[in-house]
Amino acid sequence: MKQRTHVCGEILEKYIGEKVTLQGWVKKRRDLGQVIFIDLRDRSGHVQVVCNGEKVPQALELAEKVRNEYVIEITGQVVARDEENFNELIPTGKVEVMVEELTILNASKGLPFMIEDDVEVSEDVRLKYRYLDLRRPKMYDSMYLRHRTTKLIRDILDEEQFMEVETPMLTKSTPEGARDYLVPSRVHHGEFYALPQSPQLFKQLLMVSGFERYYQIARCFRDEDLRADRQPEFTQVDIEASFMGKENLLAMMEDMMARIMRELKGIEITKPFPRLTYYEAMNRFGSDKPDTRYGMELVDVSEQVQTSDFKVFANTVKNGGVVKGICVKGVADQYSRKDLDGLGSVVEIYGAKGLAWLKVEKDKALKGPIAKFFDEAKAAELIDSFGAEAGDILFFVADKQRVAWDALGALRIKFAKDLELVNHEEFNFLWVTEFPLLSYDEDADRYVAEHHPFTRPVAEDEELLETAPENIRAEAYDLVLNGYELGGGSQRIYERELQEKMFSALGFTEEEAKSQFGFLLDAFEYGTPPHGGIALGLDRLVMILAGRNNLRETIAFPKTASASCLLTNAPSGVSEAQLNDLNLSIKPKEKEKTN
Amino acid sequence: MKQRTHVCGEILEKYIGEKVTLQGWVKKRRDLGQVIFIDLRDRSGHVQVVCNGEKVPQALELAEKVRNEYVIEITGQVVARDEENFNELIPTGKVEVMVEELTILNASKGLPFMIEDDVEVSEDVRLKYRYLDLRRPKMYDSMYLRHRTTKLIRDILDEEQFMEVETPMLTKSTPEGARDYLVPSRVHHGEFYALPQSPQLFKQLLMVSGFERYYQIARCFRDEDLRADRQPEFTQVDIEASFMGKENLLAMMEDMMARIMRELKGIEITKPFPRLTYYEAMNRFGSDKPDTRYGMELVDVSEQVQTSDFKVFANTVKNGGVVKGICVKGVADQYSRKDLDGLGSVVEIYGAKGLAWLKVEKDKALKGPIAKFFDEAKAAELIDSFGAEAGDILFFVADKQRVAWDALGALRIKFAKDLELVNHEEFNFLWVTEFPLLSYDEDADRYVAEHHPFTRPVAEDEELLETAPENIRAEAYDLVLNGYELGGGSQRIYERELQEKMFSALGFTEEEAKSQFGFLLDAFEYGTPPHGGIALGLDRLVMILAGRNNLRETIAFPKTASASCLLTNAPSGVSEAQLNDLNLSIKPKEKEKTN
Repeated sequence: MKQRTHVCGEILEKYIGEKVTLQGWVKKRRDLGQVIFIDLRDRSGHVQVVCNGEKVPQALELAEKVRNEYVIEITGQVVARDEENFNELIPTGKVEVMVEELTILNASKGLPFMIEDDVEVSEDVRLKYRYLDLRRPKMYDSMYLRHRTTKLIRDILDEEQFMEVETPMLTKSTPEGARDYLVPSRVHHGEFYALPQSPQLFKQLLMVSGFERYYQIARCFRDEDLRADRQPEFTQVDIEASFMGKENLLAMMEDMMARIMRELKGIEITKPFPRLTYYEAMNRFGSDKPDTRYGMELVDVSEQVQTSDFKVFANTVKNGGVVKGICVKGVADQYSRKDLDGLGSVVEIYGAKGLAWLKVEKDKALKGPIAKFFDEAKAAELIDSFGAEAGDILFFVADKQRVAWDALGALRIKFAKDLELVNHEEFNFLWVTEFPLLSYDEDADRYVAEHHPFTRPVAEDEELLETAPENIRAEAYDLVLNGYELGGGSQRIYERELQEKMFSALGFTEEEAKSQFGFLLDAFEYGTPPHGGIALGLDRLVMILAGRNNLRETIAFPKTASASCLLTNAPSGVSEAQLNDLNLSIKPKEKEKTN
Repeated sequence: MKQRTHVCGEILEKYIGEKVTLQGWVKKRRDLGQVIFIDLRDRSGHVQVVCNGEKVPQALELAEKVRNEYVIEITGQVVARDEENFNELIPTGKVEVMVEELTILNASKGLPFMIEDDVEVSEDVRLKYRYLDLRRPKMYDSMYLRHRTTKLIRDILDEEQFMEVETPMLTKSTPEGARDYLVPSRVHHGEFYALPQSPQLFKQLLMVSGFERYYQIARCFRDEDLRADRQPEFTQVDIEASFMGKENLLAMMEDMMARIMRELKGIEITKPFPRLTYYEAMNRFGSDKPDTRYGMELVDVSEQVQTSDFKVFANTVKNGGVVKGICVKGVADQYSRKDLDGLGSVVEIYGAKGLAWLKVEKDKALKGPIAKFFDEAKAAELIDSFGAEAGDILFFVADKQRVAWDALGALRIKFAKDLELVNHEEFNFLWVTEFPLLSYDEDADRYVAEHHPFTRPVAEDEELLETAPENIRAEAYDLVLNGYELGGGSQRIYERELQEKMFSALGFTEEEAKSQFGFLLDAFEYGTPPHGGIALGLDRLVMILAGRNNLRETIAFPKTASASCLLTNAPSGVSEAQLNDLNLSIKPKEKEKTN
């Protein structure tokens, strides 16, 4: 192998007359008998190289053996193409390289799929041959965008005096939160490490250490059932700062997002970002991560329907529930009665008993199975509440507030998708604030932390911790982009007493709190500064920047929905010796047990 | 909490007259009754703040409550100190801040140890209170140096067009190499992931993908018994490149090291680095990671002693062994006969049967128990071989070459340490090349890879793979600094056939090779470019840069020698429910089993 002098993508007209050595992959090959044209590709792009049998017979001989995806090295002179042969689609399209020497560095057999974007192939095959899948331009671009995003975030945080600190991967299992991945200890009989769900405790301890500004682009793990936007391991931009306060932190994050958008997407976004309280977000969009690229906001018509003849609505309100709806513009003709009734299944997932609908006709008339319950005045009142016009459809959910929010929020997203209301060039960042600190978990019969147990209550709500925990707002904030939660954070508790009250509100006994988090409680007694932070999902951020809708497109070697790696066949069985070292045995499957 | 206007360390004379708000920790407090002086510290440094009870009674009242390591906020005016009160030891020593407002942000109880460098406290206590230990300036400086080193390496690799790609942490267990940390799968009954010992296979697959230049600062794991320079998890600067060749890679690494030394230590180092073959390194220094900051090179005197009257030496040579020695300069007076005989224990560890010594006297005479075996001519010959002078001591090991190398290598290091021969301002980088590809493992009764099974043989040695594997030199290189292996790498095998031969030389059946590494063998058939790489131990690099000799000083939250975290008490027991989820049960301890 020689040293290459250039990369394929940079062979432009300025190099005409120069002798170059290139290395790369055969993207395409056209055999015209005495002349073979090869599109030679490396990661920078591709250029046409020409093997002319009259001039260099040995090169032609080798070129005859070459197939797609062979790795070759060529040396030759850059020449101008005839104008009629210009290829305007590629930067190198006005030149070609006349091959003087050709070396085959490695062969390739036939590929399971073409190295092209949007090739028709199942994802399982792509994952099995991930090393080939990653040769496709879109995949390479995603990974390159990920690299650039990561680098830019690091540069920004470095400029802002944040220090990267690595925290342990082999750490302690805590029952609070999602399910841990465990790592058996060989040395400590019957004991386990846990892989971190986040570096939360360590970053707070670094604040106790006086590091003041910490960051880490950290791998985190959750052993949960997967879906398209979850992976067993994921990467988090983890940030924590002392003495910084919420406003400075949010402003810094907005600057960071603005720079990412400017430098990586060429898009200017407006700062400061809009802020919605959790209540407002739910009430207007039925979501705590609202996509504001389209309208269809939720409208509360409880007051209006309370006095209507439709008992289902009236009674719901009477019994403390709400009636809310959305107006879908100009689609009355597109949805049959059957279509509309079928939409009930969308809201049932969220526990809604049903989905009522009304088509808006000319002259403020309503049409549909429940239209008869609304007299002329009521109909007009309803229509006005939505600012609806003829041709629109109104959808209603009458239920507990939470159910109405979730059901209509999901319906709103469904219509936006089905009707293609989303402008994919738009990037709507916003903050959602004032989340509830705690929520009541019916199954566990106790309060659980909405964010995590280290989140600070809003100061004026602190006194509710012992009386009405469900009413406490948290000093928490989520960063939302186009309907995705990019990340979230909070100002933290830094006083032992308040942290103990929090654990107690979560149903921990004093002993439990001590055995799980004693080291944190202890640390708080040695001069812990006020601090807070945020964590961004890097995979998700890159996914949105790359215009993808699946996390697996932004991760080099992802797992499937059953947490398998189709390339390496992980997880896999291990030897008896390995199990013995760890003092473990595998229980028989349930089925076998019952035999 | 207000917004701070400055940090403590920047309060210099230019701010005299300005009103500032500072936040930080009480480093020291001197109570003079009506005036209390506080040294206020944040991570930037510290400044003296003055609470004068005559001027601001409330502040004095609070200052009376304040103790060391309290977190406080002060607002006040920067004033010049009287010249007699200048503190020349700190940058802020010519000013102080006259406190107008003081707020206690958090209290601190008495500390288990002082927040000062070189404090007398056991490492166990430091690790238990790591969050306080990290407040000590030296620890903070180590962590900051680590941050800067990491950032600089990233910047350099980014400039060199390397792309950061994250590879999986949950991957496949392979029996080759060290012991894996395993992670049981909940979904796949009885199966396990392994935490990566390095991203080796994935980075090679990225080369197959045409990424050309990959890097990652990757966490790696080895479940081995620990010592001072090993941790169960460690961080590796992982680099791989296609079409780059060894020479370009080594040159780039030299540039990287030179920039690190220049930008982080202010030291210019000489390039290119010296290169020693493995054989030369062992032969001259008895080590494959020689510290060249001092001499005491090994001298082979096999030829000279072969004809001496000392049968032990003569017979060793006759039987195919060697006699080698080192000369320790000018210490004859410092070591008694008893001391010298005691040194035998140093070499016994390496299997040496004994350590012979001779003191050099005036007029080329020798003294010591074996001096009588060397007549005048022989004595002079020996002395000349070492370039020895009166007052030196010669040490000899007569054994197999490998034993002589190891034993004298260790002895050389011991003397350098004991006699303080090391110049700690010197940074001697060098490359060791041409390592053996394979070595014979007596226990396993097979060849094992010295580096790993993916390392390429030197081209002219390839044919020995099936005939004399132990004689093959590898296309491998280690980067050595001051006697530490900073890292190592190699050019890789990229042909399926050669890789299969390698596995076969390692005693793998075809089936074993396929089940373990089938995906890599397959990948090699789809146009794999020539590639190679290197991995540097980041923890170790930072340790050397920081002038430390224990990896735990460069890791924020390290594990002890028994792989425990004394802060969080990881590893720890987990619940029955967690074990059930994973279909695992814990075997009773051996003792209990025998009951």
